[in-house]
Amino acid sequence: MTKPYVRLDKDDAVVLLVDHQTGLLSLVRDIDPDKFKNNVLALANLAKYFELPTILTTSFEDGPNGPLVPELKNMFPDAPFIARPGQINAWDNEDFVAAVKATGKKQIIIAGVVTEVCVAFPTLSALAAGFDVFVITDASGTFNDITRNAAHNRMSAAGAQLMSWFGAAGELHRDWRNDVEGLGSLFSQHIPDYRNLMNSYLTVNAKK
Amino acid sequence: MTKPYVRLDKDDAVVLLVDHQTGLLSLVRDIDPDKFKNNVLALANLAKYFELPTILTTSFEDGPNGPLVPELKNMFPDAPFIARPGQINAWDNEDFVAAVKATGKKQIIIAGVVTEVCVAFPTLSALAAGFDVFVITDASGTFNDITRNAAHNRMSAAGAQLMSWFGAAGELHRDWRNDVEGLGSLFSQHIPDYRNLMNSYLTVNAKK
Amino acid sequence: MTKPYVRLDKDDAVVLLVDHQTGLLSLVRDIDPDKFKNNVLALANLAKYFELPTILTTSFEDGPNGPLVPELKNMFPDAPFIARPGQINAWDNEDFVAAVKATGKKQIIIAGVVTEVCVAFPTLSALAAGFDVFVITDASGTFNDITRNAAHNRMSAAGAQLMSWFGAAGELHRDWRNDVEGLGSLFSQHIPDYRNLMNSYLTVNAKK
Amino acid sequence: MTKPYVRLDKDDAVVLLVDHQTGLLSLVRDIDPDKFKNNVLALANLAKYFELPTILTTSFEDGPNGPLVPELKNMFPDAPFIARPGQINAWDNEDFVAAVKATGKKQIIIAGVVTEVCVAFPTLSALAAGFDVFVITDASGTFNDITRNAAHNRMSAAGAQLMSWFGAAGELHRDWRNDVEGLGSLFSQHIPDYRNLMNSYLTVNAKK
Amino acid sequence: MTKPYVRLDKDDAVVLLVDHQTGLLSLVRDIDPDKFKNNVLALANLAKYFELPTILTTSFEDGPNGPLVPELKNMFPDAPFIARPGQINAWDNEDFVAAVKATGKKQIIIAGVVTEVCVAFPTLSALAAGFDVFVITDASGTFNDITRNAAHNRMSAAGAQLMSWFGAAGELHRDWRNDVEGLGSLFSQHIPDYRNLMNSYLTVNAKK
Amino acid sequence: MTKPYVRLDKDDAVVLLVDHQTGLLSLVRDIDPDKFKNNVLALANLAKYFELPTILTTSFEDGPNGPLVPELKNMFPDAPFIARPGQINAWDNEDFVAAVKATGKKQIIIAGVVTEVCVAFPTLSALAAGFDVFVITDASGTFNDITRNAAHNRMSAAGAQLMSWFGAAGELHRDWRNDVEGLGSLFSQHIPDYRNLMNSYLTVNAKK
Amino acid sequence: MTKPYVRLDKDDAVVLLVDHQTGLLSLVRDIDPDKFKNNVLALANLAKYFELPTILTTSFEDGPNGPLVPELKNMFPDAPFIARPGQINAWDNEDFVAAVKATGKKQIIIAGVVTEVCVAFPTLSALAAGFDVFVITDASGTFNDITRNAAHNRMSAAGAQLMSWFGAAGELHRDWRNDVEGLGSLFSQHIPDYRNLMNSYLTVNAKK
Amino acid sequence: MTKPYVRLDKDDAVVLLVDHQTGLLSLVRDIDPDKFKNNVLALANLAKYFELPTILTTSFEDGPNGPLVPELKNMFPDAPFIARPGQINAWDNEDFVAAVKATGKKQIIIAGVVTEVCVAFPTLSALAAGFDVFVITDASGTFNDITRNAAHNRMSAAGAQLMSWFGAAGELHRDWRNDVEGLGSLFSQHIPDYRNLMNSYLTVNAKK
Repeated sequence: MTKPYVRLDKDDAVVLLVDHQTGLLSLVRDIDPDKFKNNVLALANLAKYFELPTILTTSFEDGPNGPLVPELKNMFPDAPFIARPGQINAWDNEDFVAAVKATGKKQIIIAGVVTEVCVAFPTLSALAAGFDVFVITDASGTFNDITRNAAHNRMSAAGAQLMSWFGAAGELHRDWRNDVEGLGSLFSQHIPDYRNLMNSYLTVNAKK
Repeated sequence: MTKPYVRLDKDDAVVLLVDHQTGLLSLVRDIDPDKFKNNVLALANLAKYFELPTILTTSFEDGPNGPLVPELKNMFPDAPFIARPGQINAWDNEDFVAAVKATGKKQIIIAGVVTEVCVAFPTLSALAAGFDVFVITDASGTFNDITRNAAHNRMSAAGAQLMSWFGAAGELHRDWRNDVEGLGSLFSQHIPDYRNLMNSYLTVNAKK
Repeated sequence: MTKPYVRLDKDDAVVLLVDHQTGLLSLVRDIDPDKFKNNVLALANLAKYFELPTILTTSFEDGPNGPLVPELKNMFPDAPFIARPGQINAWDNEDFVAAVKATGKKQIIIAGVVTEVCVAFPTLSALAAGFDVFVITDASGTFNDITRNAAHNRMSAAGAQLMSWFGAAGELHRDWRNDVEGLGSLFSQHIPDYRNLMNSYLTVNAKK
Repeated sequence: MTKPYVRLDKDDAVVLLVDHQTGLLSLVRDIDPDKFKNNVLALANLAKYFELPTILTTSFEDGPNGPLVPELKNMFPDAPFIARPGQINAWDNEDFVAAVKATGKKQIIIAGVVTEVCVAFPTLSALAAGFDVFVITDASGTFNDITRNAAHNRMSAAGAQLMSWFGAAGELHRDWRNDVEGLGSLFSQHIPDYRNLMNSYLTVNAKK
Repeated sequence: MTKPYVRLDKDDAVVLLVDHQTGLLSLVRDIDPDKFKNNVLALANLAKYFELPTILTTSFEDGPNGPLVPELKNMFPDAPFIARPGQINAWDNEDFVAAVKATGKKQIIIAGVVTEVCVAFPTLSALAAGFDVFVITDASGTFNDITRNAAHNRMSAAGAQLMSWFGAAGELHRDWRNDVEGLGSLFSQHIPDYRNLMNSYLTVNAKK
Repeated sequence: MTKPYVRLDKDDAVVLLVDHQTGLLSLVRDIDPDKFKNNVLALANLAKYFELPTILTTSFEDGPNGPLVPELKNMFPDAPFIARPGQINAWDNEDFVAAVKATGKKQIIIAGVVTEVCVAFPTLSALAAGFDVFVITDASGTFNDITRNAAHNRMSAAGAQLMSWFGAAGELHRDWRNDVEGLGSLFSQHIPDYRNLMNSYLTVNAKK
Repeated sequence: MTKPYVRLDKDDAVVLLVDHQTGLLSLVRDIDPDKFKNNVLALANLAKYFELPTILTTSFEDGPNGPLVPELKNMFPDAPFIARPGQINAWDNEDFVAAVKATGKKQIIIAGVVTEVCVAFPTLSALAAGFDVFVITDASGTFNDITRNAAHNRMSAAGAQLMSWFGAAGELHRDWRNDVEGLGSLFSQHIPDYRNLMNSYLTVNAKK
Repeated sequence: MTKPYVRLDKDDAVVLLVDHQTGLLSLVRDIDPDKFKNNVLALANLAKYFELPTILTTSFEDGPNGPLVPELKNMFPDAPFIARPGQINAWDNEDFVAAVKATGKKQIIIAGVVTEVCVAFPTLSALAAGFDVFVITDASGTFNDITRNAAHNRMSAAGAQLMSWFGAAGELHRDWRNDVEGLGSLFSQHIPDYRNLMNSYLTVNAKK
């Protein structure tokens, strides 16, 4: 008895960025802030690079949670942006669900802050609604590894697939030949070790 | 094939606080004592805030296990309090099960000390009895991460959902508009980073 | 759809101690040696205390793996002791399986060195043979946490229940009233924090 | 060749709390926020308990650094409070140094955020000015353990004594008989394990 | 309801070494480089020792990813070596799948760099194609433990078995009597603690 | 310019065990309880083995701090035992200092709970009084590694020598030929790895 | 006896960036690559912001060590750049020492890869030559924390001051009023938590 | 006041390898065994490469401590090898000191097992005898980081310089031009990341 491999497909995927707000980010303690910032921007650049429809949402921007981090706002000026008036689970917001459904995609790539609430709740709702959900674990943050592991366990048990932004990039791209430079540039911007490899390589080659 | 998302419902949930006793707490080594105390009190305050029926139980209060921590006793003066005469699994105590069933709730939120015994045993029994069980992982403590992970694995494999107190609060509340101040106050009391956000915000706003 | 809670039963359980040999123990690096020694002896004392049939086995005692640690040998002078001539999976040894089956028990409590071989192989075989298997994670050791987690995952996916020796003791005992002193003594010998609780308690009481 | 033991003396010590501001606290990542909040409040309560003159100072309260945490402000309503207009090293602010000197004390107990700037700079200046300086390491926070260790090394090399709030309390009190209840209460409020010891003890004694 | 134990069989297993390239190895940060090098070579020696068909593959050898590490190239001069022109998932490369199928084996032992891409993708594809897949977790590396755990979770949920090279060796060998010296030599080369055991043992014996 | 090596001398050393009380031990969180218990007993056995004069002291035995752990009391029935009526620094107690001076020794070996108070204060006092002080770091415990490192730094800066019980044993013994079995037995009782070495060795030798 | 506080002075400091080369960076394992890249660029921006003379040097650019990371090269197009032909200790290169001396500065701020070689050697040489040396610990990387701590110990014992880039920035700037925006911008670019504080603050203020 | 930089000099250095015995190595728990084996062999190869006189010594080879690891014995067939009959501090053995003095060198490079005994004791003795001592921290091992840090502190306080084998190699070599290939080969054999750099580099260059 084998089951099919549900694989990310760049023609059938939408990216949801949930509550990456300047205030809420101070709650994230399970990933170092330098790395976390990098991972979130890497996921955002991935969405741009693969031209995936992307939906932004925030919770209570006017209060202590703070605004969406400006980098994300600037990268997706035309994306649906749902500032939820109060719903904690973004999937409880009709506009948000409508925006997701309007894309016509069946695969959801999701990340947010904090993992057990802003990521887990819409993930569980979307799974119940029949979507395939791919959680970008390293672009989602929470208080500590106990709360993270609990959230991952709950989402996985419900059928979500746990991934990293790098894994998602590889699965969406499928073949380097589709665009070597584009993918290389995405990696080089967000993986210092990869950038070093490229710079070493280019330098030696330039000397030929 | 999708399955429904079993979601915490404040009208259908009961909180079980198992064996948070002054002696047993010295066994907890997988969470720092400052953080653990805070998490347990946060869960207790959550129960008060959402007016969830709450049941307290202890094991051998008169011996080295020590009494229930006074804070919990004081917060729930009228809650059913079952000082078990000997049963290690609280669910083996008829009064305890009767108290749970008397609430008429189908969802159990549970935490206790130590995780693999005082939490896991009643969790497995309650699942077998048809309840939905939500384990508050960060308000439950044990000897080390090996014993914790084993206990989490066993409960999850049996169908329990692993959560944090913050995740439970979010799922019970559903919408900030139900009471912004109340939930904000709960978070501010138990999450220093959130309190700082609120204090920064209020200060700037006060100057307008 | 609820499933029954398979619970350790002192009348239906056998303990398997696999390859706790003086040489092999130097391979264990995922648990501190002081703690590991304590956990293994705690499990052995648990077996004695609950009068569970216990089976010892070793692999290549005459070579660098070294002999069974003398403490275990001394504690179970009359237990079946299968010095396997070569089988790596103890379950491949007919004498060993015969010894297990001769006990007539359906529940296996197992621990050993190293986790992914000496514990995992007989666990998977026993599960396939229809036994319930309870792995004592903290009395089993291996090279590091990557190999441990892989082994735990593999056994859990096959249906084993992951436990600690303390959890097993609690589940076997069921009710403190069956013997307060006996269980208290087991805990006091192997949990320094519990011993301290008892000594503090006894001292104050003695002064009444 | 022996040198004298420079020992905290409650009649010769002043406490400096430097830049524990709601915004700056989000930079502290080398101590868990629950524990850090507890340590800072413990130090503040220590100052109150021993009636040590205490001086508060902040940097740029009106900007993103945020106000002094309200708890500290409320605990020391009459203490000198120097909102520095710009000096990063509090010792560069004449009012601050004047306030310190006005106390007539020669021993400085200092803590703040972040360790390598707000604590280290005035510590080095005060040492150069001939004061004895006792750094409360666990009520001072910074980005990570590399920056912390560097700061501790720099201060220690210059002659500062590194302490914890608990160590300072013990050295100031000298003898439990000066006030058993007062010191016990300070410990009980800020050390969960100590509170548990006291509650266990009181319960057993109450039953005599 | 028991399920069969799918057990590694040296007559039915093929080893896939995916993208252990000199450049990509600099991305591996979840295992120390000394240990990782050792684990990869141990797996390679295991393949040689059990005479398992082995297939090598790389991605973009001519660019910054760098060539296959020379040790592997030298150990398997006659093995199928598929330098993929662009496919990120090796299973998308027809030659690679053909090479696997040509072995006629149903069990796949796989390791590579990085875990969530080069290992996970072909693992998920192979499972979907009906193979049994055994992932050698300690010979596969990635960025950090969050990305590793996510990858392990995804593969395990799809039916892969997580193992270590040592576990695989034990399961393939079955019985020490098949060749004591060969297996001992494999262990001695790659486990310093085991080598020490052997050297101690041999020395004492030599003196008899 | 060379300085002499101040070396532990079994004819000139006294052991001070400070406040290893059943209650206070629950405060120790920087060393695992199994290991800490072992280290303290190892130091006690070291004192017995080398027949070093040993002085016991406690603080407030009648309150929550609890009694001296019975093992120590039993091992040194005739040792000076100073139950301090209130002095936090044992050196402030005249009987304690008199007991130390009565031994006529110039080298102090000290351990206790908690490190920054019960160990550091008498260490600093004794150094000021002209003694050489050797702190047994692994038989002294405190809240966490920040407080430990601060205490070690303070003591080291004042001239104390930081050691382990194993290091002290080696320095006191000087030459294995003084008593091979005695020292081997001390190590074997308190170092599981050493016990395993001995058991492996004895087994092979017994077969000659 | 007090000693003066040797304080960084922007008019008397030179920055040395030693061997931050694309190949050598792959050796750095004691700091996460995202964070390390950020710290190195922060130090470089600090040098630019305070207009400190800056000297770049590399070792064997043409071999596997790789070229200087391009970001640094681009930021300091006119800085002295000494590609050392072979000297491992940069201070052994006459051009390098001449470049340092040509600045006329007495304070050296240094960082590099790897810490115990490229940083420690010129630090020790410069100290011996009478310079004050400030080591930026978090912009210097090495193999692991054992090698790092050894290197820090060696440099500190020789008189170097251990700092972080943030501490250096604060000490150089002295007073926020010298330029609020400039320093705020430096922090905001390199400390995600600080950027979040600023964005939260600006958003609330913008709404006034 | 500047002091000279005491720098390793290949014409004035001797290497002491103390008690790297097959049994004692099982006590080393502060460094992973794969890495530790590599570091010890790297130091041995360093000694060979720089043709430094090298002295081997062991303690009780005939007992459970086991023989010197064969690799070291084989690498230095003609080196003085002092099998100490009982002295724990190698410096207490006259033959050993004579062997050291016979080299006429003033700089001692030392490593051994365990750090606080076999390394620290001869280090302190040699310092007292007027030698410069360089401790190779990563080729010396002990029980845990508490015992390691205590030992490092004690040796550093006495004037020893703490180093890594890589740092020692760099300081001895002084200039790559003395022998590029030799030093590169030493690094390549013992630093997997460096080997990868070299292999990547050579591959690209070979294609020119």
